Amino acid sequence: MTTPDATDVLTRERGGFRTELIAHGWLLPSRTAVLPGLGPQANAVYDGLAALISRTTRARFAAPVTAVRFPPVFSASMLERTDYVASFPQLLGTISSFTGEQSEYRELIDVYDRGGDWQGRLSPTGLAVASAACHPLYAYLEGTTAAGATVYEMTGECFRHEPSDDPMRFVAFRMREYVVVGSEQQARAHRVQGIAIARGIFEALGLVIDVVPANDPFFGRGGAMLAASQLQDEAKFELVTEVYAGRPTAIGSGNYHGTHFGAEFALHQADGTVAHSACSAYGMERIVFALAARHGFEIVDWPPRVRELLGLADVGAVA
Amino acid sequence: MTTPDATDVLTRERGGFRTELIAHGWLLPSRTAVLPGLGPQANAVYDGLAALISRTTRARFAAPVTAVRFPPVFSASMLERTDYVASFPQLLGTISSFTGEQSEYRELIDVYDRGGDWQGRLSPTGLAVASAACHPLYAYLEGTTAAGATVYEMTGECFRHEPSDDPMRFVAFRMREYVVVGSEQQARAHRVQGIAIARGIFEALGLVIDVVPANDPFFGRGGAMLAASQLQDEAKFELVTEVYAGRPTAIGSGNYHGTHFGAEFALHQADGTVAHSACSAYGMERIVFALAARHGFEIVDWPPRVRELLGLADVGAVA
Repeated sequence: MTTPDATDVLTRERGGFRTELIAHGWLLPSRTAVLPGLGPQANAVYDGLAALISRTTRARFAAPVTAVRFPPVFSASMLERTDYVASFPQLLGTISSFTGEQSEYRELIDVYDRGGDWQGRLSPTGLAVASAACHPLYAYLEGTTAAGATVYEMTGECFRHEPSDDPMRFVAFRMREYVVVGSEQQARAHRVQGIAIARGIFEALGLVIDVVPANDPFFGRGGAMLAASQLQDEAKFELVTEVYAGRPTAIGSGNYHGTHFGAEFALHQADGTVAHSACSAYGMERIVFALAARHGFEIVDWPPRVRELLGLADVGAVA
Repeated sequence: MTTPDATDVLTRERGGFRTELIAHGWLLPSRTAVLPGLGPQANAVYDGLAALISRTTRARFAAPVTAVRFPPVFSASMLERTDYVASFPQLLGTISSFTGEQSEYRELIDVYDRGGDWQGRLSPTGLAVASAACHPLYAYLEGTTAAGATVYEMTGECFRHEPSDDPMRFVAFRMREYVVVGSEQQARAHRVQGIAIARGIFEALGLVIDVVPANDPFFGRGGAMLAASQLQDEAKFELVTEVYAGRPTAIGSGNYHGTHFGAEFALHQADGTVAHSACSAYGMERIVFALAARHGFEIVDWPPRVRELLGLADVGAVA
C-alpha cells in the first residue's frame, strides 16, 4: 500500500522531474497541442540509443535481424483480433473523420462556427491508433509458416489513453521490439536472450537495472485472472530502473506470448502445429529520460563511455 | 481533363507498381491491419535518405538546424486553431476511447461479444492524429518572439483519411520538415533555399524533378477561392517526379505561409509585428518508392553513387 505521504512525495518528484526536463529543453510543453515534444538533446540521445540497440542486437541475437516497419494507424478490427477491446478498452483509440456530403458539410461548419460539438458530426473511419508495435507484424504474417529463424525488428508508435503529468508516462510513444515466431523453445529462448541483451545495453549506459516478473493492467473481463495468470506463467518480465526513489519504472520488457498470437493469426510451425511467439521491447522515450535522470540534463557532462556508446562523444552542448 | 482511357492506364500502372512493391518486399500488405508496412529494403533506403537530408540541410541552410520532435497525436483543438476542420474535414482524424465505469464496461463487452457497434460506445478523448508535422511546432512556440535565426527540423507522422490503392498515397506517412519563423524576407528566402536544397538532393539521387506551383485540396468553405489564392500568391511549390507516366507525383514542397500561423499562434518578430513562416517538406515514403520506381527493386543494382549517398554502398542484397 502507498501511504498518502508517499503519494505526495511521488507527486512532487514527478513534478520536479518534469520541471527539470522542461527547463533544460528535453521536453517541449505546449498549451494547445497538449502532448509535449522532445528537444534537441532528447532527440540526439534517442538517435544514438536507436543505433546502439540496432548494432547490439545484430551482434548478439543468434538469428539474423530483419527490419520491418508498420504505420502508427491500423484497422480497428486489429483491436478485436487481439481482444484489446475487452482487455484494455480504456487505453485504445479509434479514429473518426468527416465522411458526409456537401449538405452535411454545411451543417458541420455551422456547428463548428458556433463553437459546438463538431466532433459529434464525424463517423468512425474503421481505423485505430496502434496499440503495440508488434501487433501489425502478426497480421502481416497471417496464415504463414514460421521457422523461428528470423528476428523481426520494428519501431512503432504506440497509443495508450492514460493522460498523466508524470513525464515517464506517455499517451504516444515509440517502442522498439524484437519478435520471434516459431517453436515454444525458440520463443522462450528469444525472451531470455532478449532480456539479457537489453540488460547489457542498459547497464553499459550506466543504468541500475532490476528484472522483475510483471503483469499488464487488464481492465475488465477476467482482468484479475489474466494478470495473475501472466505472473504465474512468468509470461512477462520487465526491466526496471529507479527514476523516482523506491518506485521502479519499466523501460524494457521480455514477453513470451505462448500461442496467443499464433492461434489468432493462424501462424504455424513447419510440423503444422500452432506457432509460439515472444518479443523483447524497449520503451524508447522512457530510456532517454531515465538516462537524463541518471546522468544529468547536459550531455557534455555525461560519462565519456556512455557518450561514446551513443555516438555523442564529439558533441558539445547540443543547441 | 483525364479521359476514361487515361484513367484506366493510370489504374493499371498503380496496380502494377503496387504488385511489384509487394513482390519485392518493399510493401508488406495485410488483410487485417489494412495499411501496409515497409520491408527491409524500403527501411534501409528510408534510413539512408533521412541521414542524407540531415547532413545536406546542415551543410547548406544558412541558419543552424535544431532537431525537435512531436508525437503523432495532439489535441483536437489544434485542428480548430489551424482551421483544419473547415478546410480539410474529410482528411482529419479525431480519437475516441472508452471512458466509462464498470457498469458501462459490461455494456460495451456485451455489444462487442455480439459483434455489435462497440465503437458507438466510445467517447471523444479530445485528441486527434496529427495533420501535419509542423503544426505542433507553432503551438510549442506560441506567444514567443521569433528571430528567424533557427531552422527547426522535425520528422512527423501525418494522418490523411484518403484510403487508396495507389501505393504513392498513404493514410499515415512520415514528413520531414524544415521550418523558419521570422520576417517576411527570412521566410521567403527559406522557402527558396529549401526548394533548391531538396531539388539538389533528389537530382543527386537520380530523380527527374520539376518544380511547379501548387494548391492544397481545400474541401469546403471558400475552397476554390483558397486554392486559387495559394496559386496566385505562389505560396506553395511542389517538387514532382514521374512515377506514373505523364502524371507527376509530389515528393517534396516549399511553402510560404505568410502570417497564417504567426497570427493564430501569436508569433512575433523582434519589432512586435506578426511573424511570417515557411517550411520545406519531404514526403519520406513517397521518395523511397520513387527511388524504387526509378532504379528498380534491388538496391544492389542501383547506381553506385546513389547507394553511396544513401550509405548503402556496402550493402549486399538486404534480406
